[in-house]
Amino acid sequence: MSDERPIRVTVWNENRVERTDAAVRAVYPDGMHETIAGAIREHLGERAEVRTATLDEPRHGLDDAVLETTDVLTWWGHLFHDDVADDVASAVQQRVLDGMGLVVLHSGHLSKPFKRLMGTSCNLRWREADDRELVWTVSPAHPVARGVPPVFAIERQEMYGEFFDVPPPDELVFVSSFTGGEVFRSGCCFLRGKGRIVFFSPGHEHFPVYHHAHVRRVVANAVLWSRVEQPSPVETWTCVESPRGWFEERA
Amino acid sequence: MSDERPIRVTVWNENRVERTDAAVRAVYPDGMHETIAGAIREHLGERAEVRTATLDEPRHGLDDAVLETTDVLTWWGHLFHDDVADDVASAVQQRVLDGMGLVVLHSGHLSKPFKRLMGTSCNLRWREADDRELVWTVSPAHPVARGVPPVFAIERQEMYGEFFDVPPPDELVFVSSFTGGEVFRSGCCFLRGKGRIVFFSPGHEHFPVYHHAHVRRVVANAVLWSRVEQPSPVETWTCVESPRGWFEERA
Amino acid sequence: MSDERPIRVTVWNENRVERTDAAVRAVYPDGMHETIAGAIREHLGERAEVRTATLDEPRHGLDDAVLETTDVLTWWGHLFHDDVADDVASAVQQRVLDGMGLVVLHSGHLSKPFKRLMGTSCNLRWREADDRELVWTVSPAHPVARGVPPVFAIERQEMYGEFFDVPPPDELVFVSSFTGGEVFRSGCCFLRGKGRIVFFSPGHEHFPVYHHAHVRRVVANAVLWSRVEQPSPVETWTCVESPRGWFEERA
Amino acid sequence: MSDERPIRVTVWNENRVERTDAAVRAVYPDGMHETIAGAIREHLGERAEVRTATLDEPRHGLDDAVLETTDVLTWWGHLFHDDVADDVASAVQQRVLDGMGLVVLHSGHLSKPFKRLMGTSCNLRWREADDRELVWTVSPAHPVARGVPPVFAIERQEMYGEFFDVPPPDELVFVSSFTGGEVFRSGCCFLRGKGRIVFFSPGHEHFPVYHHAHVRRVVANAVLWSRVEQPSPVETWTCVESPRGWFEERA
Repeated sequence: MSDERPIRVTVWNENRVERTDAAVRAVYPDGMHETIAGAIREHLGERAEVRTATLDEPRHGLDDAVLETTDVLTWWGHLFHDDVADDVASAVQQRVLDGMGLVVLHSGHLSKPFKRLMGTSCNLRWREADDRELVWTVSPAHPVARGVPPVFAIERQEMYGEFFDVPPPDELVFVSSFTGGEVFRSGCCFLRGKGRIVFFSPGHEHFPVYHHAHVRRVVANAVLWSRVEQPSPVETWTCVESPRGWFEERA
Repeated sequence: MSDERPIRVTVWNENRVERTDAAVRAVYPDGMHETIAGAIREHLGERAEVRTATLDEPRHGLDDAVLETTDVLTWWGHLFHDDVADDVASAVQQRVLDGMGLVVLHSGHLSKPFKRLMGTSCNLRWREADDRELVWTVSPAHPVARGVPPVFAIERQEMYGEFFDVPPPDELVFVSSFTGGEVFRSGCCFLRGKGRIVFFSPGHEHFPVYHHAHVRRVVANAVLWSRVEQPSPVETWTCVESPRGWFEERA
Repeated sequence: MSDERPIRVTVWNENRVERTDAAVRAVYPDGMHETIAGAIREHLGERAEVRTATLDEPRHGLDDAVLETTDVLTWWGHLFHDDVADDVASAVQQRVLDGMGLVVLHSGHLSKPFKRLMGTSCNLRWREADDRELVWTVSPAHPVARGVPPVFAIERQEMYGEFFDVPPPDELVFVSSFTGGEVFRSGCCFLRGKGRIVFFSPGHEHFPVYHHAHVRRVVANAVLWSRVEQPSPVETWTCVESPRGWFEERA
Repeated sequence: MSDERPIRVTVWNENRVERTDAAVRAVYPDGMHETIAGAIREHLGERAEVRTATLDEPRHGLDDAVLETTDVLTWWGHLFHDDVADDVASAVQQRVLDGMGLVVLHSGHLSKPFKRLMGTSCNLRWREADDRELVWTVSPAHPVARGVPPVFAIERQEMYGEFFDVPPPDELVFVSSFTGGEVFRSGCCFLRGKGRIVFFSPGHEHFPVYHHAHVRRVVANAVLWSRVEQPSPVETWTCVESPRGWFEERA
């Protein structure tokens, strides 16, 4: 029953602003995807095989062969959501419903795959500021909160506030407050089809959020939690026609 | 605080099979929409103003003026989901996020508005049979279960079974069993944006399910529950930019 | 189906500190119960019949005759939880499971009925301070949030913060922030047995919180939401022995 | 981050009927606890250290030293719930709130620890019969359903049916049907305090349910899921007084 096969993680990033904005590059010289990948490698070690994919690769680095060999996909996007091809967004959505984990980070809340999976606008209140975010654990028994203190501070952060227009999370792990008095459900888990989704809001291209020790731990926790070790043989692709009742089927 | 304004209900139906299939017409001579509308009128009386809309009307009877004056929309569709225009489906989705109630009946589980709001395939196991469905209440404190016995039987029914690929319901009200041994989460409630959604699975065009006393009561209960009396002023359309913190905004 | 019978509300209060502390009496000259009862009467008018009960009455004013004729009980207690007799606490718990609504206010989080119904410690982080609480709506489709703005401030308030050791709420309506940066799930709904429970945290004996317009509205909303109009005939008292299967029972 | 320490599991059983009833002994010659322990050892191997404890041992085999070194406790009880000392039941409840996993099996639904943790009657409908139970997965992304088919049959089983008076499960994994047409939420997960609870209903002393391959797998899955690898430092024992705000505390 133990699962020796490493978790195959693909870290996706737009990787544009890092190339055009020196201030961002100063914080993430190899692109945010490398910093995020490093956080996962740091905490999961040999339990994970981590690769990256970016927007400007063919099919955004997410062709069928990549998706089919990805157990957990992490997603960071911001200014270029519309440049993601609809069929790639659909393929990601379908892979989640088929059992892939998805970890959506920060401004990924408006990405095509996340919006399609949520069915809502995924809008929120925001302020591009230099706020202190406090991240509070509201579900201490949750694996995504493992190893972090009851509250931790991110000294410099953009503000994301309520109302956050997502479905009520199936599991709510973190709630944040900001200097301006705003609150935000910053760690949300969703089950969809055979897949598992985490939205974790901390993260901004101008601030070194993905270098923050507790944030790195949470990202790694989210990868572990969202991994479906052995997708269920339950059928979700099409209506299953069951011409005779269950009892007769067996006969 | 009491809300004297009646609930404005629009009952939507494909209304095609009733015109082409004499067996269906025998059960629903005026179309299923009239039978469903009658159930709502029977139970809500002056508390509801009920009108109908059907697929073959212009914009399927759901132009902006209709949607904007609809508090709760009920939806029955089956064979012609694809004939619903994408922009009408989008408008219905948006109206729900803005505070309209939506009651999705039976084969409406594969309708465009419901699938977009759920983000999943909405597929299920089914068997076109002549099964007895038993509907069990699993949430006795829920308004949608008001006035029905702990279990009731629908003598002739198509089988809908698990796995039903929807998000975990925010509130689960009914679970059904079928002659073949299958089970189904037959009464599911969802909150999305400012809107409220009920999925209630009983109902089939060849069987007189919408003439069943308890089914009629549940449909009326669902209309009451899904009505948002006074949509919140919370903003869900676009990211709300909050240029200064909450405290400063007030100053 | 419309329910013309008024909601029978009993507002419970310790009513001790009002008699011993002049500062509290200055804010609530007739006791907090009268102020809370007034909020319900203000918003529900003829839809509610409101009476009060207090700790130092025989059986704390909650004998069987009172409980059996109470549709919704509101509860404010703080320093004298231990003075509530165990059998009264048990009777309240049982009445909730049988279909009574319960609205637990502020420091009532440590009351015997609430702790028994939750099964957890119900502890939290607190600071007796003079904080500004901001109450944010995170479920705009929820009836308990009806008629209040997306955020409102309570200028002077004690701090209640996470971790709040209750079960994950079945419905989360409000999240608050405090001057100190803390957050709190301040509006929580629970379904238990045939009953419905709201916990709403604002309220303090030294501050005029129950005179606050939005707080008063929420208390009235909570009464409406927690009222079970027609308790289900589902059996919850004892294991129901069903000597023959459902099908045979009917025969 | 990988957790090499084995899960310390204690399998609790009344172990009385096995000694007095030859029919039960024929099915479970070493007591049900040994069969259940064997299922866990079979699936978890070196990942688990399994010991047993029974009702007639001093303190029912659950003294403080045992509880403090138990990561996950499984519980099977039926006729002798009242013989469990109140202080042991309280200690179990507290250990769950402090981060122990609890797997409650079958008739354990009326055990003292489970009832206290739920806050409801935990009653249900039942029929001591020789029914076929079908267990359907309704949450295919859930680790407790890992490795089992979409539906499996238990050929001989007592009937447990709705309404099952527990709080709405935080995660619903399985729904069962029975020959008599009844349904039951047979796999329910709850988060309480820092602990995690699974209720799994299959299991009966006269039938070889714990020899069933899929049941054994689910019990092992439940142990894995309910184990909290590193309990959060969040405080749940008493109200945490925070004399100064969070910001000041740090200064």
